[in-house]
Amino acid sequence: MKLTIKEIAKLAGVSSTTVSQILNQKGERFSEKTKQKVMKVIEENDYKPDFFAQNLITKKSNTIGMIVPDVSDFFFSKIVEGVEQYFASSEYMILLCNSGHEKEKEQKLIEELVHRSVDGIIMATPNDVDHKNFSLYQREKPIPLVLIDRGKNKRKQGNIIVREYEGAYRAIEWLIQSGHRQIAMIREKENYYRLPERTLAYLDCLEAYQLSCDTNRIVEADLTMNGGYEATQKLLDTTHFTALFCGNDAMAVGAYRAIGDAGLKIPEDVSVIGFDGLSLTSFLVPSLTTIEQPTFEIGMCAAQFLEKKIECPKEPIANRSFATKFIVRESTQIIDIQNLKC
Amino acid sequence: MKLTIKEIAKLAGVSSTTVSQILNQKGERFSEKTKQKVMKVIEENDYKPDFFAQNLITKKSNTIGMIVPDVSDFFFSKIVEGVEQYFASSEYMILLCNSGHEKEKEQKLIEELVHRSVDGIIMATPNDVDHKNFSLYQREKPIPLVLIDRGKNKRKQGNIIVREYEGAYRAIEWLIQSGHRQIAMIREKENYYRLPERTLAYLDCLEAYQLSCDTNRIVEADLTMNGGYEATQKLLDTTHFTALFCGNDAMAVGAYRAIGDAGLKIPEDVSVIGFDGLSLTSFLVPSLTTIEQPTFEIGMCAAQFLEKKIECPKEPIANRSFATKFIVRESTQIIDIQNLKC
Repeated sequence: MKLTIKEIAKLAGVSSTTVSQILNQKGERFSEKTKQKVMKVIEENDYKPDFFAQNLITKKSNTIGMIVPDVSDFFFSKIVEGVEQYFASSEYMILLCNSGHEKEKEQKLIEELVHRSVDGIIMATPNDVDHKNFSLYQREKPIPLVLIDRGKNKRKQGNIIVREYEGAYRAIEWLIQSGHRQIAMIREKENYYRLPERTLAYLDCLEAYQLSCDTNRIVEADLTMNGGYEATQKLLDTTHFTALFCGNDAMAVGAYRAIGDAGLKIPEDVSVIGFDGLSLTSFLVPSLTTIEQPTFEIGMCAAQFLEKKIECPKEPIANRSFATKFIVRESTQIIDIQNLKC
Repeated sequence: MKLTIKEIAKLAGVSSTTVSQILNQKGERFSEKTKQKVMKVIEENDYKPDFFAQNLITKKSNTIGMIVPDVSDFFFSKIVEGVEQYFASSEYMILLCNSGHEKEKEQKLIEELVHRSVDGIIMATPNDVDHKNFSLYQREKPIPLVLIDRGKNKRKQGNIIVREYEGAYRAIEWLIQSGHRQIAMIREKENYYRLPERTLAYLDCLEAYQLSCDTNRIVEADLTMNGGYEATQKLLDTTHFTALFCGNDAMAVGAYRAIGDAGLKIPEDVSVIGFDGLSLTSFLVPSLTTIEQPTFEIGMCAAQFLEKKIECPKEPIANRSFATKFIVRESTQIIDIQNLKC
């Protein structure tokens, strides 16, 4: 059974006030001997102060709120893993929430987390975040918030960015230099998670190499296997292409299936490139050429930033920009080696 | 800014005690007029009582603890989705934790969750759970606990079970009736998540059809893509088989790759069957024959059981047993149609 402060006091032969003040780190005026007497009783009886009573005093919950669009998504679950790993040996627990990509739900979740006095929040979001909107439930100071938002919400410091444009440009350039001239793309639907850099890099690179961009060759889809499947079917029905750049790896899995259903072969008939670098991609047959994001490291970095914001709120935090890694595997074919510069 | 009880009292023209008692549902002795005055101030000012102060009184945190071996695993993330969906429109938030399959970590997490006064816990576990072990931190009554443990911890009521034996047996029998005589299996490593029914069904079914069970044909592996990859390589190196039963779908993805690397074709050279029914399996080329578990429904059911345990602790809860669904797709081949009874 759990001991009360009164019982501890009785066992240690001191007053309840003494116990309470020692427990709450306000026991400077007591002798070492008294403190040790109290601590001994506590240790011997495995006493833990009531979580809620303790929080009323310390205003610290040792809880981190983490909001992601979809915890079952390959990509976000890897970020969560990084955050968990970082906090694994600390006292923080993680309150994990799904926003379902919805801005309204994000807002509601932030308010709920602030109400529960989380010490800080990490949020992966495709949306604008207005810090003022949830100030209603803030106490003395704004809640430490780290965003994994692809640079959408410019902040003075602590931005976490992946250089996606650079990564996507590199991949498209590689395709062109390998002889591909007709390159299709599956991009995200506009009402869904927004990844504009990937499309921009695709368009810019085609332009830089003076290749015409046929608008039929860009199709929008949900960032899912099924989205990639349907979009690829549409592309195969309406246009011709020798290479397909998918906005993420999940869509590439769907593209594999649609290309197989059409009786075509990867990479002989179509080269396919994904984005994200999920571990699944190396097991696919053929293995998928992709642009790897350092997902786990992003999670670790977000956790580190948040810990800093909580523990040293006045210390500045640098921005962090991650490079991607272009991994050429079996799903892409070099058509014309002459053009390849690198 | 957040109002204090003192400020509400001042605005409503009553005492702080009055406000406090009305807020804590102990205001029977006050007039309707007084109550309405207080409630009006509260509504107009968007007052929310302090989460921790409120919990000290109500002893309710509106928080559910959920422990799974690995939130990034395809299978468990789908269960989490079911639990989230069930509680989506309720006041409960979910505190999600990874145990990494370790019993010790599970124990620590349960204690931590109880310490945070969660209203109940859902735990997916391969381990024995001794309710007494965490009673130290329980208050007046045992914490409501729902286990997704494949029937490991027998309880008087509220067991959630999937009839895995039946599902696995059906799949092996289908292989035999399709003419397969040399059927290999990749099972889980013993120190990992335990899935004994699947192996037992495999062995029983071979025996029922008087097929010898070559021990070389059973290989142990981690329940991951890489585990499946390595185990399949080992099987291909050491024995001959026309069909391969994988303990889960992730291992089947690894098996696909190993079979392709060996220059063999699915299903022409080897038929492959998985277990779980992940959405990925229908997109694979060839699509994977598998035994589907109602993962999302399991999550929903666990959530419903827990809600009942919290809100009507004295009401009995029935046990729930789910059937699996055998889905025949492109990865399996019928060798000898004569033998097929169904």
